[in-house]
Amino acid sequence: MLITLLTDFGTRDTYVGVMKGVIKDIDPHIEIIDLTHEIPAQDIAAGAFALKTSFAYFPPGTVHLAVVDPGVGSARRPIAAHIGSYFYVCPDNGLLSYVLAQEKRREAVILNNTQYWRHPVSRTFHGRDIFAPAAAHLACGVPLSDFGTQAGALLSFPVPTPRMTEGQILCHVISVDVFGNVITDLSEDIYNTWHVTPCVISAAGQDIPGPVASYSDVPDGAALALFGSSGHFEVAVRNGSAARTLGLNIGDGISLSVKTSTHT
Amino acid sequence: MLITLLTDFGTRDTYVGVMKGVIKDIDPHIEIIDLTHEIPAQDIAAGAFALKTSFAYFPPGTVHLAVVDPGVGSARRPIAAHIGSYFYVCPDNGLLSYVLAQEKRREAVILNNTQYWRHPVSRTFHGRDIFAPAAAHLACGVPLSDFGTQAGALLSFPVPTPRMTEGQILCHVISVDVFGNVITDLSEDIYNTWHVTPCVISAAGQDIPGPVASYSDVPDGAALALFGSSGHFEVAVRNGSAARTLGLNIGDGISLSVKTSTHT
Amino acid sequence: MLITLLTDFGTRDTYVGVMKGVIKDIDPHIEIIDLTHEIPAQDIAAGAFALKTSFAYFPPGTVHLAVVDPGVGSARRPIAAHIGSYFYVCPDNGLLSYVLAQEKRREAVILNNTQYWRHPVSRTFHGRDIFAPAAAHLACGVPLSDFGTQAGALLSFPVPTPRMTEGQILCHVISVDVFGNVITDLSEDIYNTWHVTPCVISAAGQDIPGPVASYSDVPDGAALALFGSSGHFEVAVRNGSAARTLGLNIGDGISLSVKTSTHT
Repeated sequence: MLITLLTDFGTRDTYVGVMKGVIKDIDPHIEIIDLTHEIPAQDIAAGAFALKTSFAYFPPGTVHLAVVDPGVGSARRPIAAHIGSYFYVCPDNGLLSYVLAQEKRREAVILNNTQYWRHPVSRTFHGRDIFAPAAAHLACGVPLSDFGTQAGALLSFPVPTPRMTEGQILCHVISVDVFGNVITDLSEDIYNTWHVTPCVISAAGQDIPGPVASYSDVPDGAALALFGSSGHFEVAVRNGSAARTLGLNIGDGISLSVKTSTHT
Repeated sequence: MLITLLTDFGTRDTYVGVMKGVIKDIDPHIEIIDLTHEIPAQDIAAGAFALKTSFAYFPPGTVHLAVVDPGVGSARRPIAAHIGSYFYVCPDNGLLSYVLAQEKRREAVILNNTQYWRHPVSRTFHGRDIFAPAAAHLACGVPLSDFGTQAGALLSFPVPTPRMTEGQILCHVISVDVFGNVITDLSEDIYNTWHVTPCVISAAGQDIPGPVASYSDVPDGAALALFGSSGHFEVAVRNGSAARTLGLNIGDGISLSVKTSTHT
Repeated sequence: MLITLLTDFGTRDTYVGVMKGVIKDIDPHIEIIDLTHEIPAQDIAAGAFALKTSFAYFPPGTVHLAVVDPGVGSARRPIAAHIGSYFYVCPDNGLLSYVLAQEKRREAVILNNTQYWRHPVSRTFHGRDIFAPAAAHLACGVPLSDFGTQAGALLSFPVPTPRMTEGQILCHVISVDVFGNVITDLSEDIYNTWHVTPCVISAAGQDIPGPVASYSDVPDGAALALFGSSGHFEVAVRNGSAARTLGLNIGDGISLSVKTSTHT
């Protein structure tokens, strides 16, 4: 019985601790692991990407509880879902976009069975009053269908994808990690279908060596490109920050082009 | 066997990890949940408020271990207490002020039975050497009275309360959360005894609409007032920070006044 | 079955959460406690000191998993070790320097048995693919020798030590904690062999009273020296930051000299 917790609540206030208390009060045997609580405030896309990078490393049956909820108190639907081997409890606002793009098998319900809510339900903290109790009961084995009516299609934003032509891949920065590594939407699987070696990598108006095998292939402070731990194409600076050094931000384009011989 | 942990130690050093090691070394079956470790350094009032917002969400019997301890090494008393359905282990310096204001049933002892200390006791880290061991043994079922002599009255600072007249409530900012929501000392229970609807809410020289039902009742960036998840009257800015936008700080007054019809 | 986790990954990304998922997927009964994830990026010395201050407070048999790994993907060896009463899993880059300086009994292997790796192994995240799986299997009771070939001598940097003469101890700042307390390489044990009382303590060109018994021996805002919770000689400012007030940094010298009577 394992629940992971992902929020934009930070760790300064007791909001996260209170959600854990609510879960433990329903069943003290449930274990809780923090994915992160430092999603930028109300940044659904960042929360969705964080889920994508982590959900599959947990034991099958794990309940992923994700609360990045700018629409709390409005019409957005609270949901629970069974997608692939995992359960998810979250607002239906796009947080599952990447997960849904990867997994076909799915079943989802709206959390409208008030029997599984904590009462009274506040106007501003459904993480405590609706989502945490649902995750706890789900971890305890309550069937998904008990939590409410079928949800139908879930809200999903278009997942960024690279633009490929025969001569070029144009990919996009989708995340910057705490080290300043710049992660793109180009997966190694897709790259491998392109069959272009060697290629010229261009980011922020600069040629970047790569894809290299590891950071140690370039000197300290030099930029490089490689396939990172998430299986995605990344631009990094050895023992430095690529985001800061190259001025790269989420949404920026990075191109991989066929190397052409030039005669001058 | 559940212990919660609240400190001003931050998470950069290993002080919190060490306290957990001491607890696990006494009994590895004890589970530990972090409330927060980001109480501002030595801010007893902030620690007391954080305890108030969270203690009651945990299973009865939970041991709340709280260490915000500017007086470590001086005459302040280390205590363990049974208040309502929960246990508390902390310095007797006001950390329990809000809890004591809410709960009548209480029993407290001074942690002067050195059998339950970790030896040698350091001069500066009683969290490790006195409080954590006491919390662990308490979680294991050692009776409160074994830890030392009866404590008598506990130190408690006056809990902020709103000033009410027939025509006005003057409440005070008692906390600002990480989102910039401004939380006051006016509880919904007290407000409901006032019977004044509608009212004019004034904060930082501005009229604030409310109490509204949820954030979505106002446009993005607009201020509003509502009863928040702690059951207290709050001033917020939708998808923004009320503290920053309105310049509100702890201690500032916010008034709710009877709406009078004016003819000019 | 307890694993502690120490990294320089921060808590903003899901790297730490993913390592915990990998551990739980190997055995859900393993418990995981965070020492800290805020070691400055790639600062092996800071990671080594953090391990030193915490390893011995945990139950014997605890697995300490430490990943500060600037050489990931290069020739540095991934190791598991049994040192004193504890197990360690980390890169062989000096992280165990302080632990090795304290403990004689040791056995170490290189993690080159690929059966205990998570596949495919990434180029940049051995914490997830090599270290976390090894720690989990070690916690489950797999013998150390199963993980790979004997490691021989481990990499260890010289641990800072005070210079002692009959008239003076010159010690060095080895760590600054989050409160600004300045921790030196002078242990109370060594000091006690010096037999000089009283002495004149000089730091940053200033005379500092001490060693005192506790913070409360000086007024608010005043500097003092004492033996702190780690058993080391520290310089602090009561309810303030010694590092900031006195301008002390890691590596700076602090002297303790015999008090001589001067006649003018």
